[in-house]
Amino acid sequence: MSEYKVCVVGAGAVGEEMVKVLRQRNFPVSELVIFARSNRTQEIDGEQYEVRETSADAFEGIDIAFFAGTEGSKGASRQYGWEAVERGAFVIDNGDDFRMDDRVPLVVPEVNGDAMANHNGFIANPNCSTIQMVHALAPLHKLAGLKRVVVTTYQSVSGTGSAAIKELAQQIDDYVAGKDLTIEQYAHQILLNLIPQIGSLKDEFAGYYSEEIKMIKESRKIFDVADLAVSATCVRVPVFKAHSEAVNVEFHKPISAEQARGALAAWPGIEVLDDPASSKYPMPLFAANTDPTYVGRIRQDSCNPNTLDMWIVADNIRKGAALNAVQIAEAAIARGFLKR
Amino acid sequence: MSEYKVCVVGAGAVGEEMVKVLRQRNFPVSELVIFARSNRTQEIDGEQYEVRETSADAFEGIDIAFFAGTEGSKGASRQYGWEAVERGAFVIDNGDDFRMDDRVPLVVPEVNGDAMANHNGFIANPNCSTIQMVHALAPLHKLAGLKRVVVTTYQSVSGTGSAAIKELAQQIDDYVAGKDLTIEQYAHQILLNLIPQIGSLKDEFAGYYSEEIKMIKESRKIFDVADLAVSATCVRVPVFKAHSEAVNVEFHKPISAEQARGALAAWPGIEVLDDPASSKYPMPLFAANTDPTYVGRIRQDSCNPNTLDMWIVADNIRKGAALNAVQIAEAAIARGFLKR
Repeated sequence: MSEYKVCVVGAGAVGEEMVKVLRQRNFPVSELVIFARSNRTQEIDGEQYEVRETSADAFEGIDIAFFAGTEGSKGASRQYGWEAVERGAFVIDNGDDFRMDDRVPLVVPEVNGDAMANHNGFIANPNCSTIQMVHALAPLHKLAGLKRVVVTTYQSVSGTGSAAIKELAQQIDDYVAGKDLTIEQYAHQILLNLIPQIGSLKDEFAGYYSEEIKMIKESRKIFDVADLAVSATCVRVPVFKAHSEAVNVEFHKPISAEQARGALAAWPGIEVLDDPASSKYPMPLFAANTDPTYVGRIRQDSCNPNTLDMWIVADNIRKGAALNAVQIAEAAIARGFLKR
Repeated sequence: MSEYKVCVVGAGAVGEEMVKVLRQRNFPVSELVIFARSNRTQEIDGEQYEVRETSADAFEGIDIAFFAGTEGSKGASRQYGWEAVERGAFVIDNGDDFRMDDRVPLVVPEVNGDAMANHNGFIANPNCSTIQMVHALAPLHKLAGLKRVVVTTYQSVSGTGSAAIKELAQQIDDYVAGKDLTIEQYAHQILLNLIPQIGSLKDEFAGYYSEEIKMIKESRKIFDVADLAVSATCVRVPVFKAHSEAVNVEFHKPISAEQARGALAAWPGIEVLDDPASSKYPMPLFAANTDPTYVGRIRQDSCNPNTLDMWIVADNIRKGAALNAVQIAEAAIARGFLKR
């Protein structure tokens, strides 16, 4: 089996998880290097890594370059992504700079891996909330054809990055100690609260924040259904890890909860947890640090036989970011899309 | 002005809040008595009250009887409600035993106060999540006619009662102290988690929990639209007080966000908080212990000019229970529906 010289660009929450996932999955790595803003030594998953300063020439000889695309590394793929491609690297970018770029396939391997067939050396990893949703919708789309999706999210603070994880932890400590809470990562306190704002306003959709717009546009690109009707409301909740989503989906054809359960259970990467009588359903506390996209509360809409309601939970740092990025590389290798 | 001999049945979170609201609003009370399972003295809102054991005869001479209808007092209205009516009391029941009873109007005064016109002495207070939703939908229904509602809730632990408030507080303390968390009120830990289960399963809607069924059936009764399409997913979140709801509403006619904002701002009891550019929107932390139903994130669905998305927050113990019950009595008096 071939081995690859791999780099991870960015050493925040997602970059660290990428390193972890590459090791856990025994990704065929001949050499693993980490690039970031500055040279340093950093412990990741119990191992010391020499982190090197990113430069265009550093991509010389790299086979696969993962851009973590969040926090400190934001903008790295804009600056170095195509430079890396020119130097022969296969780029997988977790950031949002090129997701809607026509040159760039936007890929969840279990959904549209073949979109990579005619790639230009640059693949985009979708937004975390989009990944778990399209992953769970894919088998149902195949069965009955997606028509309209109304999604509401319950997103954990890890989506913002490690500083937000620390801020929530600090708010809990300070709350118990009776101190004033520090609020820096969000416009408001997140502990014991909900913040219906993720991202910033954009002109193209009046009143929508960018996370909501991403869910709409990325879903259409991934399913290749330009007029797919998607409504999204994204809300930050006081949970450390794993995003949850309530989804109401209308299909072109009737579909029963039973059919949906069967199709979901058979789909790669999906785990159905759906026994409401025993209080069994997906929850972020238990999805955190695991790989599957969990689906439960699957039920036919009482008003329309073509509509299903369901509840989707996945670890936003793993399936929502690092794991999906590594799976893109694995799929590209397995399907022969990676030119060496 | 007339004064009324008033009783509150049940002295848990809702009963206590009813006493508080009656005082805060200077409700015309000649005498206020509290009934519960057993005789005792209880401090409510800084005042000592003699709590008396409930009995049918205790309602003799009572003009208005509020049944708190949660926790310890559950079932009291089933046992004593009609007995109180027979003895001349005007009964307002916060419990869910008679909400769908044809003899009983189900009332949010700002929505369908006139449904009390031909009352039988017994009025039901809707479920907390239903109240704030129909309150915010009423002005829009008047403008454009409701067709379909997809609602997803983010419900605070106070909806379960004071024991659940204590449990979340205890889980925070124990989490910081590194102790095992006590889990008694819910099937799972609520701190740093989400539980997509409120209530129990019912045969009539496969896979739906009872809170979701209540939202569907009660909305139809309150708006008097038997075939109103409502889909509900109800989720418990780690928040002490105030419920939040993401609502996607399709109307019979086109309606703009601007029109909706105007109609909502002019409606009694509604406060519009909708300036996303300044991170201004309703949040449970700030809605707690206040009276309005707050509405924000109002935007036209990008896929359908007849559809709006919005975010609704209200204190579930006040507008969602105690306040609405007292407002029912006030409306009945003001509109001359209360026979003396």
